[in-house]
Amino acid sequence: MPRAVSDGGEHMDSEIASRSSSHRRVDSVQHAGYKVGFPPKKKLLDEFTDAVKETFFADDPLRQYKDQSRSKKVLLGLQHIFPVLDWGRHYTFAKFRGDLVAGLTIASLCIPQDIGYAKLAGLLPQYGLYSSFVPPLIYALMGSSRDIAIGPVAVVSLLLGTLLQNEIDPKKNPTEYTRLAFTATFFAGVTQAALGFFRLGFIIEFLSHAAIVGFMAGAAITIALQQLKGFLGIVDFTKKTDIISVMKSVWKNVHHGWNWETILIGACFLAFLLVTKYIAKKNKKLFWVSAIAPLTSVIISTFFVYITRADKHGVAIVKHINKGINPPSASLIYFTGPYLAKGFKIGVVAGMIGLTEAIAIGRTFAGMKDYQIDGNKEMVALGTMNIVGSMTSCYVATGSFSRSAVNYMAGCHTAVSNVVMSIVVLLTLELITPLFKYTPNAILSAIIISAVLGLIDYQTAYLIWKVDKLDFLACLGAFFGVVFSSVEYGLLIAVVISLAKILLQVTRPRTALLGNLPRTTIYRNIDQYPEATLVPGMVIVRVDSAIYFTNSNYVKERILRWLRDEEERQQDQKLLKTEFLIVELSPVIDIDTSGIHALEDLFRALEKRKIQLILANPGLAVIQKLRSAKFADLIGEDKIFLTVEDAVKKFAPKAAENV
Amino acid sequence: MPRAVSDGGEHMDSEIASRSSSHRRVDSVQHAGYKVGFPPKKKLLDEFTDAVKETFFADDPLRQYKDQSRSKKVLLGLQHIFPVLDWGRHYTFAKFRGDLVAGLTIASLCIPQDIGYAKLAGLLPQYGLYSSFVPPLIYALMGSSRDIAIGPVAVVSLLLGTLLQNEIDPKKNPTEYTRLAFTATFFAGVTQAALGFFRLGFIIEFLSHAAIVGFMAGAAITIALQQLKGFLGIVDFTKKTDIISVMKSVWKNVHHGWNWETILIGACFLAFLLVTKYIAKKNKKLFWVSAIAPLTSVIISTFFVYITRADKHGVAIVKHINKGINPPSASLIYFTGPYLAKGFKIGVVAGMIGLTEAIAIGRTFAGMKDYQIDGNKEMVALGTMNIVGSMTSCYVATGSFSRSAVNYMAGCHTAVSNVVMSIVVLLTLELITPLFKYTPNAILSAIIISAVLGLIDYQTAYLIWKVDKLDFLACLGAFFGVVFSSVEYGLLIAVVISLAKILLQVTRPRTALLGNLPRTTIYRNIDQYPEATLVPGMVIVRVDSAIYFTNSNYVKERILRWLRDEEERQQDQKLLKTEFLIVELSPVIDIDTSGIHALEDLFRALEKRKIQLILANPGLAVIQKLRSAKFADLIGEDKIFLTVEDAVKKFAPKAAENV
Repeated sequence: MPRAVSDGGEHMDSEIASRSSSHRRVDSVQHAGYKVGFPPKKKLLDEFTDAVKETFFADDPLRQYKDQSRSKKVLLGLQHIFPVLDWGRHYTFAKFRGDLVAGLTIASLCIPQDIGYAKLAGLLPQYGLYSSFVPPLIYALMGSSRDIAIGPVAVVSLLLGTLLQNEIDPKKNPTEYTRLAFTATFFAGVTQAALGFFRLGFIIEFLSHAAIVGFMAGAAITIALQQLKGFLGIVDFTKKTDIISVMKSVWKNVHHGWNWETILIGACFLAFLLVTKYIAKKNKKLFWVSAIAPLTSVIISTFFVYITRADKHGVAIVKHINKGINPPSASLIYFTGPYLAKGFKIGVVAGMIGLTEAIAIGRTFAGMKDYQIDGNKEMVALGTMNIVGSMTSCYVATGSFSRSAVNYMAGCHTAVSNVVMSIVVLLTLELITPLFKYTPNAILSAIIISAVLGLIDYQTAYLIWKVDKLDFLACLGAFFGVVFSSVEYGLLIAVVISLAKILLQVTRPRTALLGNLPRTTIYRNIDQYPEATLVPGMVIVRVDSAIYFTNSNYVKERILRWLRDEEERQQDQKLLKTEFLIVELSPVIDIDTSGIHALEDLFRALEKRKIQLILANPGLAVIQKLRSAKFADLIGEDKIFLTVEDAVKKFAPKAAENV
Repeated sequence: MPRAVSDGGEHMDSEIASRSSSHRRVDSVQHAGYKVGFPPKKKLLDEFTDAVKETFFADDPLRQYKDQSRSKKVLLGLQHIFPVLDWGRHYTFAKFRGDLVAGLTIASLCIPQDIGYAKLAGLLPQYGLYSSFVPPLIYALMGSSRDIAIGPVAVVSLLLGTLLQNEIDPKKNPTEYTRLAFTATFFAGVTQAALGFFRLGFIIEFLSHAAIVGFMAGAAITIALQQLKGFLGIVDFTKKTDIISVMKSVWKNVHHGWNWETILIGACFLAFLLVTKYIAKKNKKLFWVSAIAPLTSVIISTFFVYITRADKHGVAIVKHINKGINPPSASLIYFTGPYLAKGFKIGVVAGMIGLTEAIAIGRTFAGMKDYQIDGNKEMVALGTMNIVGSMTSCYVATGSFSRSAVNYMAGCHTAVSNVVMSIVVLLTLELITPLFKYTPNAILSAIIISAVLGLIDYQTAYLIWKVDKLDFLACLGAFFGVVFSSVEYGLLIAVVISLAKILLQVTRPRTALLGNLPRTTIYRNIDQYPEATLVPGMVIVRVDSAIYFTNSNYVKERILRWLRDEEERQQDQKLLKTEFLIVELSPVIDIDTSGIHALEDLFRALEKRKIQLILANPGLAVIQKLRSAKFADLIGEDKIFLTVEDAVKKFAPKAAENV
């Protein structure tokens, strides 16, 4: 349609003419006649290999095996599975000193927590300690994080407890309940190891950061509420976890269910714990004060109860805790029967949540010390540790945020700190568990409350609110889901909102009208750059997303709407009629057949209005697909430009010359 | 770190020096000191309103109501709901002539198809005709497509039949079965109308084009296989729809189940139908030959069977078909009881598939005649039509691909052709249904086979294969799912693969290493532009996607891998050490808190290696979020540039001057 072009040119205003001459001055220096790059297409197999590699082996794990002898390869392979073979060779006494201190500190922290968390999971207290003995040892051999502290954690314990109690009542059928817990732990391990082995680790990234923040805060509130049972000394407590049921249960017991001795002990020690936390926060060097506070509280309160025999006055105590190390439990796992499927389902959920937490911790501390964590390898390590754990009377263990932070601050160097902790737990199990008999439950509750308060990350929530309102909605959704309904429901909300956000973004991508920044060859969004001026006779639109089936119709119609709006404006202001529509494709990473269809429709619609469709800067994948689909032939290769500037230069000056 | 910069400069090669001086020549003309645009942030309410508007009202449906008087607004509103009020006023006799011919043609096509499709849905033949009487009338009042032909269609009939037969056996409980069919139709209509009313029409776009092509082809094969019952005259036929069960059933009956008279009749007429189709394809003007062929076949074969009494020789015939128009059926719909939920579920699925088909047809023909289809309005029309249909003994009706094409070719102008068809069906029901008594089932089978063959779009499948292998996988998955398992399963596969593809793209976005196109200020992917040269001492990486929680870790690690690869190359070739990492953000449409976290991690990792992080061209949403999260302060505002060129200019020349 060259006629239309020169027609338009007659109405061209002088502003454009002067600008286009300045364009031409730049030309000689600028675009030395480059065309849109179109390297020969890769062969199908290569393309496939590349895609698989980028999807599953993004971290290029085989790089180090290149050009190595066979024996070296075997060694590297063993080191890959057991990183201890690598770092163990450089292990020094100086490092051990750090690990020893850190190990002792986290042991003092984990022992009381373990007992409390086991109760949260509906299990007997010793299972918490068991889970702090075997899994950390396995992790020390296979894991690659140097700072993570392994053991039972609050959120997974709560989740596991809730899911298990949906199936079996632990009061009525304690044996089946425990067996189902081991079954779930086994499958949690299998899930984790399988995800790592098949390099599907990216699946856990579908839970957005915002959703996790909300979920964690909700879980913390729920866990703290559950502790009101021990803290207030209520005997008849609801089994539901939502805030309304719990508060009702608490009020119902206000007159005759609360035990003032219990409350007194609990409140004193909670205050003590919170003060030590505050001190540690103010002065990072005093972190050990808050780290040893829980064990100190346990020792003092246990001694106090023992001499005052406060348990006779209604102060609930631990009463009994098995002595001795983990008994084998492989034979207790359900490999047949109706509980197999249930255990599997619970295990998958608990395993995923455990993974999410452990990987997040591993990455955080690796980032702080600047070393690499191989997510998939970590998953295999965590999975193996839980599989072995399920056969040695442990329930799902993972990395604990609070203990890992203490481990880091106490100066750990390697996973040896986990081994130290494990040995301390072993000694505890063998020697001193009977001493926990008089430990008041209120202390355990206080310890758990003070521990989970750290999971409420209101600062991040505020940051999320500032940065992205939709993310904040996901955060709130997960939070209220957990608090007002249940952990599973909150988790479901978190996943759904996370996915919905992605899909919405893909369905309704942004588009922008571009203008020229005066005296440059740059074209930018006129909303972002108010100084940018529209090019007369042209509408330049940028599409800010891959054009896929989910958005192809929207993109087409949105471009036409930009055009319509522009045409109305042109009519109102009696400007030059639009003759060219330039679609800037720089952000269009990919296109599929629906997208090409939409472009074809757009081309046809424009043809009827005598407007030429021009494409600028299609990327590699886009130009290859446009050519495969013969769309490049349809609109003409000469309508595809390297930059918007090139296209404007080609068509605007021609028009300007006719003025 | 200005020291590091000048340090690097001492090793700078002369090539860069000369290039950077040419840069400076361009400068005065080029970037007149523009900064990254950062317009004042919108207020929360405005932001929210904009987001809602863009998501749900992308087509700006209220635009025409602006600046109108109240009575005009009421009129426009009525016209919006009943487009007939708009186009009816300009209706002319010339248009009617076209519509009359088209209406008669599609009526001759739909009558035999309706009877066959009703059998496919497990219903008595008259229900097919009923569904071609009421729904087209409603659509003519409310629909905005001028070319669509409304009535029962093959795929929806098959889907509905399969889903209904999963619940009730039509042989044993014909009444309940029919009632459940009306219930499903009612809820199909409610689903469609609700999606349109709440402007959620974009939900149907989550089914990708590729998946639909595969699904349709699979459904066509399945439908054709089902017709072997009528075509071969098999009495004892399997109820399953997968190819293996059907073929087994066919072979089992090969000796005593096939009826040669039936096969002879069927084969003759199938050949006749295919030949007329071929003629119509070769010469578009003769489309009417294939359009009237089915009715002709029915008349001839019925007459033939009647005079030869072939039904006595085992040729199965229609036998009985009710006379008279649609009886009311509102009281038959299950609004209580266990079938309510089942009917609802089936209705939702059938309704969505019906919508997908109708909207695709509407869009195709609107594109060919260049008028606009309002998707959400269409959905309300289709929904209302099915709701009314369910109360007048109709089952789910939608737009038929084959009949719409005939309608278009026969020269229809408006939905009046549907009214004409509807009147013909009315007359058929009132006067001549008894004549169909002797119509052999084999003819109906032949008609359906020849109709559904058009749904196998192998050309598009080939195009998809050429353009996008992953799309082709979705296509194949849906196809084999339908053929080897069942329609529902194929549909499920289609949806899952469609969504998985989006999520995969969001999880593993592309990244590219950029180089400078010699003698320009342009930086492009070196894979796409082999002539592009890397800038010494700098690594320029482009991220080709929004940075979200799903990919933030991947993006960070992928950028670090690019850096590592570059550093290795630099060591090998003894080049200048990297001191700057420029991240080109043009294609990064959006970022969330996880993404900002990842950038922070990247910044810290680079800081430890004494490499400066520089950002180029962040978009509106990105710069706003980077500032809200204080990331811009962290890396320094002077590290954020309008273009890659600006950043290179700022840092490379400085180094070069020290040579």
